[in-house]
Amino acid sequence: MTASTALAFEARHLPHEGVAERFGRTVRRLRQARGWSQELLAARAELNRTYMGEIERASAMPSLQTAAKLAQALEVPLAELIQRCEPQLG
Amino acid sequence: MTASTALAFEARHLPHEGVAERFGRTVRRLRQARGWSQELLAARAELNRTYMGEIERASAMPSLQTAAKLAQALEVPLAELIQRCEPQLG
Repeated sequence: MTASTALAFEARHLPHEGVAERFGRTVRRLRQARGWSQELLAARAELNRTYMGEIERASAMPSLQTAAKLAQALEVPLAELIQRCEPQLG
Repeated sequence: MTASTALAFEARHLPHEGVAERFGRTVRRLRQARGWSQELLAARAELNRTYMGEIERASAMPSLQTAAKLAQALEVPLAELIQRCEPQLG
């Protein structure tokens, strides 16, 4: 789809997206901004690489503990990681 | 114990506490500040009352989804609920 179609799609669908989708996308965005592979982030967070990929794709729902491990690995406080989820969680 | 003993105990033990303990205590504190029973908060968050009690006592680790439901029920953004956990999570 074109950029404007994508934006329209996003505007229509984001408010109804679940917690897992928004969290997973934010983790992926921050990981990529650091130039890190999934393998590297998984190792830093002491998580299984497959599970890490599932979290990014929102096919797994992380526990608060796992979310905290990912925040620590990404070097942001968990509250900030969650604040960066758009639209905000909760 | 006295207030000062309690403070000393807290200072010694809090940094090593887990995510579940800090989150559960914060949920309980905010719930009590609102004068709500566990039953009422559980109903607002659409969670089982027993499970809610387990979260407060840190005998259950909530998923990010459950944490978001509790934040919504407590009428605070999830990022703020997590920010209020002392020491901060992540």
